[in-house]
Amino acid sequence: MAKIEICFDGNGKFVTVGFDELPELLRHEHAFVWLDVDANEPEELEGLRSQFGLHRIDVENALSHEQRPKISLYDDMLYLEFYGLRLVDDEIQADDIGIFVGEQFIITVRRDGNPSLKALQERWSEEQGRSNGSASESEGAPQRLGSTAGTPARKPSAPLLLYAILDDLVDDYFPVVDWLGEEIEDLEGAVTEGNAQKPQLAIQRMRTKLLHLRRLLSPQQEVVNSLLRRDVPVIDEAIIPYFADVYDHLLRIHDWMESYRDHLSTIVDLQLSIQSNRLNTTMRTLTAWSIILMASTLIAGIYGMNFVHMPELNWRFGYPAALLAMAGLGGGLHVMFRKRGWW
Amino acid sequence: MAKIEICFDGNGKFVTVGFDELPELLRHEHAFVWLDVDANEPEELEGLRSQFGLHRIDVENALSHEQRPKISLYDDMLYLEFYGLRLVDDEIQADDIGIFVGEQFIITVRRDGNPSLKALQERWSEEQGRSNGSASESEGAPQRLGSTAGTPARKPSAPLLLYAILDDLVDDYFPVVDWLGEEIEDLEGAVTEGNAQKPQLAIQRMRTKLLHLRRLLSPQQEVVNSLLRRDVPVIDEAIIPYFADVYDHLLRIHDWMESYRDHLSTIVDLQLSIQSNRLNTTMRTLTAWSIILMASTLIAGIYGMNFVHMPELNWRFGYPAALLAMAGLGGGLHVMFRKRGWW
Amino acid sequence: MAKIEICFDGNGKFVTVGFDELPELLRHEHAFVWLDVDANEPEELEGLRSQFGLHRIDVENALSHEQRPKISLYDDMLYLEFYGLRLVDDEIQADDIGIFVGEQFIITVRRDGNPSLKALQERWSEEQGRSNGSASESEGAPQRLGSTAGTPARKPSAPLLLYAILDDLVDDYFPVVDWLGEEIEDLEGAVTEGNAQKPQLAIQRMRTKLLHLRRLLSPQQEVVNSLLRRDVPVIDEAIIPYFADVYDHLLRIHDWMESYRDHLSTIVDLQLSIQSNRLNTTMRTLTAWSIILMASTLIAGIYGMNFVHMPELNWRFGYPAALLAMAGLGGGLHVMFRKRGWW
Amino acid sequence: MAKIEICFDGNGKFVTVGFDELPELLRHEHAFVWLDVDANEPEELEGLRSQFGLHRIDVENALSHEQRPKISLYDDMLYLEFYGLRLVDDEIQADDIGIFVGEQFIITVRRDGNPSLKALQERWSEEQGRSNGSASESEGAPQRLGSTAGTPARKPSAPLLLYAILDDLVDDYFPVVDWLGEEIEDLEGAVTEGNAQKPQLAIQRMRTKLLHLRRLLSPQQEVVNSLLRRDVPVIDEAIIPYFADVYDHLLRIHDWMESYRDHLSTIVDLQLSIQSNRLNTTMRTLTAWSIILMASTLIAGIYGMNFVHMPELNWRFGYPAALLAMAGLGGGLHVMFRKRGWW
Amino acid sequence: MAKIEICFDGNGKFVTVGFDELPELLRHEHAFVWLDVDANEPEELEGLRSQFGLHRIDVENALSHEQRPKISLYDDMLYLEFYGLRLVDDEIQADDIGIFVGEQFIITVRRDGNPSLKALQERWSEEQGRSNGSASESEGAPQRLGSTAGTPARKPSAPLLLYAILDDLVDDYFPVVDWLGEEIEDLEGAVTEGNAQKPQLAIQRMRTKLLHLRRLLSPQQEVVNSLLRRDVPVIDEAIIPYFADVYDHLLRIHDWMESYRDHLSTIVDLQLSIQSNRLNTTMRTLTAWSIILMASTLIAGIYGMNFVHMPELNWRFGYPAALLAMAGLGGGLHVMFRKRGWW
Repeated sequence: MAKIEICFDGNGKFVTVGFDELPELLRHEHAFVWLDVDANEPEELEGLRSQFGLHRIDVENALSHEQRPKISLYDDMLYLEFYGLRLVDDEIQADDIGIFVGEQFIITVRRDGNPSLKALQERWSEEQGRSNGSASESEGAPQRLGSTAGTPARKPSAPLLLYAILDDLVDDYFPVVDWLGEEIEDLEGAVTEGNAQKPQLAIQRMRTKLLHLRRLLSPQQEVVNSLLRRDVPVIDEAIIPYFADVYDHLLRIHDWMESYRDHLSTIVDLQLSIQSNRLNTTMRTLTAWSIILMASTLIAGIYGMNFVHMPELNWRFGYPAALLAMAGLGGGLHVMFRKRGWW
Repeated sequence: MAKIEICFDGNGKFVTVGFDELPELLRHEHAFVWLDVDANEPEELEGLRSQFGLHRIDVENALSHEQRPKISLYDDMLYLEFYGLRLVDDEIQADDIGIFVGEQFIITVRRDGNPSLKALQERWSEEQGRSNGSASESEGAPQRLGSTAGTPARKPSAPLLLYAILDDLVDDYFPVVDWLGEEIEDLEGAVTEGNAQKPQLAIQRMRTKLLHLRRLLSPQQEVVNSLLRRDVPVIDEAIIPYFADVYDHLLRIHDWMESYRDHLSTIVDLQLSIQSNRLNTTMRTLTAWSIILMASTLIAGIYGMNFVHMPELNWRFGYPAALLAMAGLGGGLHVMFRKRGWW
Repeated sequence: MAKIEICFDGNGKFVTVGFDELPELLRHEHAFVWLDVDANEPEELEGLRSQFGLHRIDVENALSHEQRPKISLYDDMLYLEFYGLRLVDDEIQADDIGIFVGEQFIITVRRDGNPSLKALQERWSEEQGRSNGSASESEGAPQRLGSTAGTPARKPSAPLLLYAILDDLVDDYFPVVDWLGEEIEDLEGAVTEGNAQKPQLAIQRMRTKLLHLRRLLSPQQEVVNSLLRRDVPVIDEAIIPYFADVYDHLLRIHDWMESYRDHLSTIVDLQLSIQSNRLNTTMRTLTAWSIILMASTLIAGIYGMNFVHMPELNWRFGYPAALLAMAGLGGGLHVMFRKRGWW
Repeated sequence: MAKIEICFDGNGKFVTVGFDELPELLRHEHAFVWLDVDANEPEELEGLRSQFGLHRIDVENALSHEQRPKISLYDDMLYLEFYGLRLVDDEIQADDIGIFVGEQFIITVRRDGNPSLKALQERWSEEQGRSNGSASESEGAPQRLGSTAGTPARKPSAPLLLYAILDDLVDDYFPVVDWLGEEIEDLEGAVTEGNAQKPQLAIQRMRTKLLHLRRLLSPQQEVVNSLLRRDVPVIDEAIIPYFADVYDHLLRIHDWMESYRDHLSTIVDLQLSIQSNRLNTTMRTLTAWSIILMASTLIAGIYGMNFVHMPELNWRFGYPAALLAMAGLGGGLHVMFRKRGWW
Repeated sequence: MAKIEICFDGNGKFVTVGFDELPELLRHEHAFVWLDVDANEPEELEGLRSQFGLHRIDVENALSHEQRPKISLYDDMLYLEFYGLRLVDDEIQADDIGIFVGEQFIITVRRDGNPSLKALQERWSEEQGRSNGSASESEGAPQRLGSTAGTPARKPSAPLLLYAILDDLVDDYFPVVDWLGEEIEDLEGAVTEGNAQKPQLAIQRMRTKLLHLRRLLSPQQEVVNSLLRRDVPVIDEAIIPYFADVYDHLLRIHDWMESYRDHLSTIVDLQLSIQSNRLNTTMRTLTAWSIILMASTLIAGIYGMNFVHMPELNWRFGYPAALLAMAGLGGGLHVMFRKRGWW
């Protein structure tokens, strides 16, 4: 069920109206609504389409899964596709959200389970209760939203609310990115100390995760950037520093992702080098012990020959001498290999 | 044989005419035709060349195989080369299609076997039947084509039909791309579990496939992008969001292809690492068993020596003691290797 | 010796004149000449320099070897450096050619052995003979050169001749590129089936070839592209689609080259992986047989010990039992290794 | 506690005032202050915010950790985030610093421990003492700051001070970058000579360090570049060469970092190749000695056989002959392996 | 000691003046000087600074070591930093040179040992001698400098002299680049034939050399390119083709360097593949000989057992039969391994 998150009647009041009263309300120049539509019930958005003049293609995109982050700019409206990220049981979940922004409205389109904007909605419902109680009080979070620096503007502004939504979504990326960074460092530690079970599979899983995330996030920079550069009619210039801040956050996340990717590929090299080193160690063990044991066996073999004339065989201490020779040879080789740093 | 797919007489009727009646028909300002030419019969397109003022170079390109996706823009016309993709027996087939777009006509040039536009053609022939039956009925697919949002325009518009064609072609890419993604995940699974026959050859085949596909698809973005940016005379601005949507689809496919490529190269690394790991395991098996067996053989060799004075040989339990020594040594080494994690 | 390939007197006749008559001839507004100069006889080009107002630097470049493809644009002239490619005994030969283009002349500068433009020259000499015989006949190849679509212009046009030359040169690239592609596929087959002699050397040779070719060809795109974009005075707009076609051919060749390069690097990975696989197989053979043989030898060694009290030695069937034990152990190990997929 | 580093009263005097006198002082057109705020005491900067009209978002960024280097440009002000680097116990420490620049003020925001600007501050306090003593003396370091070439301007200029700060910060990068270069060369030496303990871990640590540093530094070029290109109101054109010099220094550092990265990846290849070479050497040792020892053991085994009819066993010199055969075989193989370059 | 390389008094004479006469001389509109300053004696350049209005920052850069190639453009002057390259004992030496260019002067700043411009200076001193002897004579090298094509201008022009200097410096790059190419081909040959001592170290040294060179040269393209694009006041348009030629030379060198880099990385792959191949060969030798020798030893071991009931031991030809069995087994295995292509 679509919900009306904010409904401002243009006379300084937050009001509660039904869907059928919306057209009436929006006739007032300063009225403003934020509608939150569930993408699982497409007929709702269809219903709003003609009311707000949404483009057919955007509506189709908003309702379908797995779109690419994008922005469509119109004369009096814009449409954004963005992603919310969250960690669910150590898996990264991406929820897509479609955002229509007009002069008097913002429509967010989400699947039901998507909790991305919960905090923002709570801030707003609190604000509405309070502001209706006493319209003069204006500090804290809503202040941060509903006003540019210094001049407190009462009406919720569409671009500022858009900023609040994007900021909220992007702020949710940081814990995910931090978690990724820790996972990668754990992985590096496990590879370095060699106590990982099948490190190559863990590396592979992490690389796949990063690839997936990068495919989601990298087009978003472009989306926010076009809010800064182009003459976007809905967004007035005083608000651009806010979007520039969101853009900077996205760039920082992008820097981190690139950094993770490079880090992972150094871990791949490291793992390869450690494997190769381990093989070297194994082979040296094999070589050294083979030589020691085969040399000793050769001595034993020599005195196992059945020649009639082998004077040593009759020596009193021939046997211990042979044992000594073996031990001496083995010990000597042992020392030699140690000197050459083989173990 | 070239077919006339759509023929609209400008008076709200879809009509059926012969080729020789075309010039007559097109004298009417709102008339419109869609001709579908078989590239295997070049003389047909040659025949249309002077009629529609097609550029000689474009005609040559449309008739030849293996062109690069491209766009040529003229004052009153444009020429596109595009690809259709489909899966035939788990092989990706690419069919090139040349598209001439003018104010009053669209000419598509294809090889005969190419089924790319079948669905679109069926939609249209259905629409023609219906619309001639009752001209007032206008919903469903043709509606989606023949009208911008809200204002139902009767005449089939060249750019909207071009959009429908490109959309149709690009929509056919998604099953191919999804199939590729599944193949790659199967490949990853097979490599991970080590039960692939010659995984390196499967990887190689997949990489070659991706290279081939990338060479086909990557120039297409550029082609569609130039429909958005340049002041293309045939395309009026209201339709640009439609092409922007096709462009977004191409970008998404491009993102996926890049992602696949990176994924494949992580699989190459994984396969290398697994191979190297397997070598390590083999060598450790060799080393451990060589040492155990050679050490036991050495003991046997020692008691096989023929020294006259070897007191152990005369011991009552010399033989079982020697066997015990071998077993003990072997068991001890076994435990030691296990402790060092060698198996 | 420089040759006069085309000499058109401006009155609809191809004429034959000496070098000293050229100034006289060119005084006629519609006269046109194509001079083909041998770079091995620098004084000829020097002689033409003041006649046609060529830039000193360009003349120096045209005469020297191993220049980079480039373009110099002047108010009434342009200078291009381009490459012709051909296969000589399975080696790629690149011949550089300098082209001066003015309103009334084209001067091509080549080394003597360079056969690049032979076909074009033959087409022209044929055309001259015929056109002087009957000036009204105009079809076939010269038509393709000497006229824009539809309007047959008698005078050979400098930009159209330039197009013909570039098209001729670029058309010669395709057999070379196709040959390369086949060579690479042969190489891949040989690597895959493992029956190549020293595949790493063949790969290396092919990579070096590609590097060399890429260094020659990649600047050429830029050269042709600047013919499209800049307001080149010598080239009028109607002819730009022709150069756009040459540019598309160069892009296609570039795509192929990139594709080959990526393909080769997948072959390098494949070869590495096959080598590593082969090593694995070798090591498993070694390990399995070592264990089988050493275990059997150990049994033989045990019964070769000289203990006085070894009851088995006196058994009636001790010897065959020992042989059986060896065979049984060997067979058992053999089965075990086979089960683990070692051979 | 925020400190007032420079306070110039506009009448040619450096004065000492309290925070509450600042508004009064700044009413004078030529007055100028440099305030140095501790980011650990956020309420101080908050206090300055309305006084100087700082943007709320910038203040938030200046107070928080781990921002990305960035620049915000306003009509009468700019805000920069930059990094200072220093070596602490062979670890690279990065301290972020926020810089607000207006016509009459510079505010630097740092954590307390950050020593980056100490030298600059000392130069200034010295200068203030001296200049107040005798206003006519003007040479040395302050000269370098407080004046453009030739015309000694008494008032400290905001952009020149900004230049001095950035120059100071960037100058501190060079020792860090030089130290990194030396570390990398040491690493290369250790890898080359093979006497490094776990070189792969050292390489990994260095690569991680570089990744970290690159993430910090690469956005700074962009920041300084935008001081050069855009019409930054606070910065007048005569000073741009100074910032261009800072930009050049950043480019040089960037070149070095790229160079280090490439160098490290060649070291990775080198290390892999050396490891592979070492494995080769080990395996050749194993192979050669295995063959020599096994061949000798075979001879011993042959004469250890118990056949009744073995004439050699009864030879007078059978035993030494067998030993000689072993030695000869061993020596012969030794020579052969040496000839094939195996050791 | 700074030297006056060219001093032209504006009346068609090359004159010799002292430093103190320079201001007097330069008052003449057509006068021109080329000063060559030694960077080891900074006070000289300091002295010229106010005379010619050089920027303080540029002077600092010109005097310091290891600057990045750069260009600073002013209204009536420009400052360049460039590199000269030469081979000294098979090591590449880079000498930096600072160049100030004004309407009436060029100042080159170099360290004393730098021989880069010697040839140019000699050409000039010769020219001065000759031209003063007979002012009408004007051919050969100076002609190439002091005149645009066709119109002999007597006064040495600053941009043409700058061109001559840059051309001279860049011409010196080609022998260095050629030498590098030969070294790389030698390296490839040595790696291919496997007769290199420690090829991985040679590769590493070459890669480091290329990295170093690339860091020096790649910014120079940008420097020369900005001479072509921007409206550089000192450089008039007729001369731009000359600088375009220098730029082309730099691009060619850049192409070669990129090509070398790619070539080197194919050599790294080749070397790895050859190493891996060699390991394979070694292991096959080991495996084959181990199996042959161990199998023979097993036979010897069997007949060395001490069973009482071993009928073969008493056979008349038991011993030769056993030897034959060994030889047969060994020979059979040998043939089998040869068939499998193991040696």
